[in-house]
Amino acid sequence: MSTLFPDAPAHWRWITGEGDTRAIIEKHGSEVDVLLSASIEKLDKVMLSHFPKLKMIASISAGFSNIDLDECRARNIAVTNAPGLNSADVADLAATFLTSLLLRLPQMQTYILDNQWVTPAGPLRHSLRNTPVGIVGFGSIGKEVATRLTPFGLDLKWWGPRAKPEVDIPYVNSIEALADQCQGLVVCCRPDASNRHLINEDILNRLGSDGVLVNVARGSVVDEEALIDALCSHRIAGAGLDVFDPEPTSGDRWANVPNVMLTPHRGGSTYETLFAQAQIAQRNVESFLAGGPLQTSVL
Amino acid sequence: MSTLFPDAPAHWRWITGEGDTRAIIEKHGSEVDVLLSASIEKLDKVMLSHFPKLKMIASISAGFSNIDLDECRARNIAVTNAPGLNSADVADLAATFLTSLLLRLPQMQTYILDNQWVTPAGPLRHSLRNTPVGIVGFGSIGKEVATRLTPFGLDLKWWGPRAKPEVDIPYVNSIEALADQCQGLVVCCRPDASNRHLINEDILNRLGSDGVLVNVARGSVVDEEALIDALCSHRIAGAGLDVFDPEPTSGDRWANVPNVMLTPHRGGSTYETLFAQAQIAQRNVESFLAGGPLQTSVL
Repeated sequence: MSTLFPDAPAHWRWITGEGDTRAIIEKHGSEVDVLLSASIEKLDKVMLSHFPKLKMIASISAGFSNIDLDECRARNIAVTNAPGLNSADVADLAATFLTSLLLRLPQMQTYILDNQWVTPAGPLRHSLRNTPVGIVGFGSIGKEVATRLTPFGLDLKWWGPRAKPEVDIPYVNSIEALADQCQGLVVCCRPDASNRHLINEDILNRLGSDGVLVNVARGSVVDEEALIDALCSHRIAGAGLDVFDPEPTSGDRWANVPNVMLTPHRGGSTYETLFAQAQIAQRNVESFLAGGPLQTSVL
Repeated sequence: MSTLFPDAPAHWRWITGEGDTRAIIEKHGSEVDVLLSASIEKLDKVMLSHFPKLKMIASISAGFSNIDLDECRARNIAVTNAPGLNSADVADLAATFLTSLLLRLPQMQTYILDNQWVTPAGPLRHSLRNTPVGIVGFGSIGKEVATRLTPFGLDLKWWGPRAKPEVDIPYVNSIEALADQCQGLVVCCRPDASNRHLINEDILNRLGSDGVLVNVARGSVVDEEALIDALCSHRIAGAGLDVFDPEPTSGDRWANVPNVMLTPHRGGSTYETLFAQAQIAQRNVESFLAGGPLQTSVL
């Protein structure tokens, strides 16, 4: 962890180490003022009880779902995160999945590897130009996705729970209508209780047998069983998934599912983003210790 | 073929048909004034001898390497093609291959399918931003590739046999220097005798073990044996290939080659492009028959 903070102030005393995290926590937890969280360890009430002096948790990621906010509130522990920094990285992957799937890259690879290419001229494909594509959720990631897809000449539309007059691509009134109108959907909304299984069997059927789905938001937004069924029965043409429900997903689950492109939740996991997130965390910790304002406060 | 010309003039008399092409040619060749070529059948001296009245060959593609130009010159047969119309389609595929490979999509898919994803946090990757990428040949396709890659924030450079002051991305003086400096190469030059095996073992070694290669030009531009060897020994990190030497390529040839993305020469083969190319051919035929100028004359 400390390598992420090459410019950490001299007055920071690191309590970290290789080996048994639990043993380190039991031995040194009572010395800790500030926790840096990488959103991996669950910081629930029991875990937090090992840190009686704790004043602050600084998350080195956009996420904070691993942190028991009620307990932090009760104990007056400040919580900060580092949001919005990996939007470009996530959008790189989302845009690449989308054009790959519209170009039928999985199908074409199978066509060659199965020795189906036997005459020079093969079946034609459609141009990407003017293909209707819907962006589900137009936050910082959705905006970056649109920027990357624009030069391909796609017919971009979007839907989200609130219309945004400042967005200059057409808004569609419902996710159902977006799926009806589009041949590709890019799911990059903020995951919450309201959009669990937003992409369900009905939406997949509306997307149709030429349609492709990209999910870089969170596994919970897509009904994964319905998706696998739609792919296996060729009711949709492909899916690009960086997120799963649950994670890690197992390879066996996807071994016989055709036309999928899979990445292990790596959309935003870049060195460049992580160092930038660590800088935000460092600034928040310094500001908190000096009694100043927090840049990105969760609690 | 005639379905490609929904607005063909009434005075065109189609000689076409399903079944044995050779038999149709032997029966009706002597009636033909104009041949429409889809760049599939070889129009060599022997084949052309079946068309004693032939005045013109209009290619419905950019290519004309199937046509014996010397024989056409000797017989005063006009030849036209339909160039530049599929640049956007080819660039869609080239840009998608490039970002897919830089994102290590084949490796990540293998990681999941081989059940290697066992803890939530996995290895980090690098951001695409500022990754140096070289475009080999900055013609109409290269230009469209650059347009599509620009929003990803890559550090684009290019090389071709002639510097072009009007291009606003940096020119590198040699293909060797381009490979030394870049982590990705997109080959989209016009294939000719001078660039056969331009991408050879030396260039692949310079590209290096983090490097990826995209070829949408022609199979002959890449030394395919050297490429397969570099991929199998992980001296380069991946390749995206739409063209092969020879075509069709066999699936067995690629079955054990890691980190490849393969498409069967479909970069420019879209309905939209083909209909646009047919329109060019139709205008050329009409203009020729009326004694007017040809829009895209090869001979």
